[in-house]
Amino acid sequence: MKQKIIDPWGSELLEDYEKIIKDFGLEIFGKSLFPNPNRIMRRGIVFAGRDLKIISDAIKHNKKFYVLSGIMPSNDKIHFGTKMVVENIKYFQEHGAETYILVADLEAASARGVALKEARKRALEFHIPAYVALGLDIKKTTFYFQSENKEVMNNAYEFAKKITLNEFEAIYGSADPGKIMAAMAQVADILYPQFKERTPGIIPVGIDQDPHIRLTRDIVRRLKEKKFFLPSSIYHKYTPSLDGSFKMSKSKPESCIELPEDIKSVKRKIKNALSGGRDTLDEHRRLGAVIERDMAFELMKQHLVEDDNELNKIYNEYKSGKMTSGELKEIACIKMEDFMNNFVKGIEQARKHIDRLIFVKFK
Amino acid sequence: MKQKIIDPWGSELLEDYEKIIKDFGLEIFGKSLFPNPNRIMRRGIVFAGRDLKIISDAIKHNKKFYVLSGIMPSNDKIHFGTKMVVENIKYFQEHGAETYILVADLEAASARGVALKEARKRALEFHIPAYVALGLDIKKTTFYFQSENKEVMNNAYEFAKKITLNEFEAIYGSADPGKIMAAMAQVADILYPQFKERTPGIIPVGIDQDPHIRLTRDIVRRLKEKKFFLPSSIYHKYTPSLDGSFKMSKSKPESCIELPEDIKSVKRKIKNALSGGRDTLDEHRRLGAVIERDMAFELMKQHLVEDDNELNKIYNEYKSGKMTSGELKEIACIKMEDFMNNFVKGIEQARKHIDRLIFVKFK
Repeated sequence: MKQKIIDPWGSELLEDYEKIIKDFGLEIFGKSLFPNPNRIMRRGIVFAGRDLKIISDAIKHNKKFYVLSGIMPSNDKIHFGTKMVVENIKYFQEHGAETYILVADLEAASARGVALKEARKRALEFHIPAYVALGLDIKKTTFYFQSENKEVMNNAYEFAKKITLNEFEAIYGSADPGKIMAAMAQVADILYPQFKERTPGIIPVGIDQDPHIRLTRDIVRRLKEKKFFLPSSIYHKYTPSLDGSFKMSKSKPESCIELPEDIKSVKRKIKNALSGGRDTLDEHRRLGAVIERDMAFELMKQHLVEDDNELNKIYNEYKSGKMTSGELKEIACIKMEDFMNNFVKGIEQARKHIDRLIFVKFK
Repeated sequence: MKQKIIDPWGSELLEDYEKIIKDFGLEIFGKSLFPNPNRIMRRGIVFAGRDLKIISDAIKHNKKFYVLSGIMPSNDKIHFGTKMVVENIKYFQEHGAETYILVADLEAASARGVALKEARKRALEFHIPAYVALGLDIKKTTFYFQSENKEVMNNAYEFAKKITLNEFEAIYGSADPGKIMAAMAQVADILYPQFKERTPGIIPVGIDQDPHIRLTRDIVRRLKEKKFFLPSSIYHKYTPSLDGSFKMSKSKPESCIELPEDIKSVKRKIKNALSGGRDTLDEHRRLGAVIERDMAFELMKQHLVEDDNELNKIYNEYKSGKMTSGELKEIACIKMEDFMNNFVKGIEQARKHIDRLIFVKFK
């Protein structure tokens, strides 16, 4: 019997994520696993992982472990998925993890054709400041550029010998030289904090990044010596598209919010978003909102309302029909404006401290 | 009309190499192309190339160009093919080329599973001294290890975006992650001397290495700016297996001579080699040797007799039947013993000067 994902505020996405857990062989994320879970852990948005117990043990017994993530500087926006990754990094950072952020400039070059110089510029001027604005503590974070990390590159070459093209295609669905090289660099990145000392580590990712985790774990299992801990991973759900479909995508710009984005445009999109309100006010008062399909509520649940009691109050009032869809969207717009203003200010603020970043010193 | 490969001492391999030239779209190597051609150029063993005129012009007009080759430190032996590569490097080095020798340790790791440390050790203790023993001038040669050359690795990632998996498979016949990464590193190596300044360059290779040349040239053509000269290449024939087949191979150890190898074992192999001698002495005197099929003669022609007049004399005496197959093999054995002794002594000598190697200084 498979345990149900518990989602206190309801979700129409249940089935899709159950399928992902089954197909990829993930562990279901139990909310009591980690102490003082963050907002997305408490609300079932973090829904799965791999080898999570070793990380919860490390937290509970003050053992050494690391959290690592990569910045892909392919453009000058991030999305809500990145925001959740940063929130999980922040969580583990606050719970004792050594924190590594790498700039995946080699991946940007080999998989997306972005020149290394351009990638470096974008990372320093936008991505790293954005991460800081979202809560990353740069004083406790170690940064590096893939292109400067010879150990990562050298290990990428050694690891490449451990996997066949068929295996690669089975994991990624397809293969091309750029993608293969990018993936091998990622494997080396994920293990980089263990090059000097074998310790557990956790990689917070969106589910679309799971192939990198699987590839890394496959390769670790094939290395002769027990050189590395299998990396753990933790997955969050997608922020759904404002039209109600599975995932925000730039291919549907009116249903996708980028970070940052002009607040007028964002408000327009929220006002046009799929709503849980009933067809008439009378019906709405009588039956209450179909809250599971309301994207403005989903945005507040995932991103805009930190306090559980506040969210609960909104939930109850909307569900009961006391609050209208228009009123709910108004609240969402106000919260979003606050968030976006703080985010943009935070980026500007963080840019001033960019010289304080701690970069790995390479020989 | 296709020009015939001119081979003054005859060769049964003519057809195979004509096919290679046609299939791969090579230029036929004309012996008068370069001034003072070396032994293997004079004797039609160097048989083809790509964009050779640009190199002959550079030599004739004292223009800047480079010759580059890689050491693959996958074991502690080289073969006659490597010897010919070094002889061609030496030729271009003596005719004004800036000379680069890289140690393909990343390739050894990703394509053959040799650890980087082991590869480094082998290169320093055996391969580089062997190259010096064969005529490389270390005072005029710049060395580097792939694994230390960030520029090469970074460019390998950028170049990977320029080629599809299908194109890679069309060039190499197959693809796997290790092979792809090794090939992309080779492309970057081949162009490395041009990273700072666009100049012609020539890569001496065995024909089995032509895929790297084709891949590099394809990628250079796809780069937006005319950033690099298309690299030129020059090809030598294989040293045939002692049983007369196309190429020496370790899979037939009795027909394959390694460098270095115990001279007793080598002499035994030469004595058992395919001979051009007739079935009876009487017949041999009357008809003369079938010199085209004589592997001991082929060894002397390719490797053991430097002087053309001396080789001509042996050719005429053997061809006329005056010299027996046994006598010819005796000469080949003596020449081989001289060569092998000098080679081994040369390696020992060169090891003493290994601290004088000029390595690229990386930041």
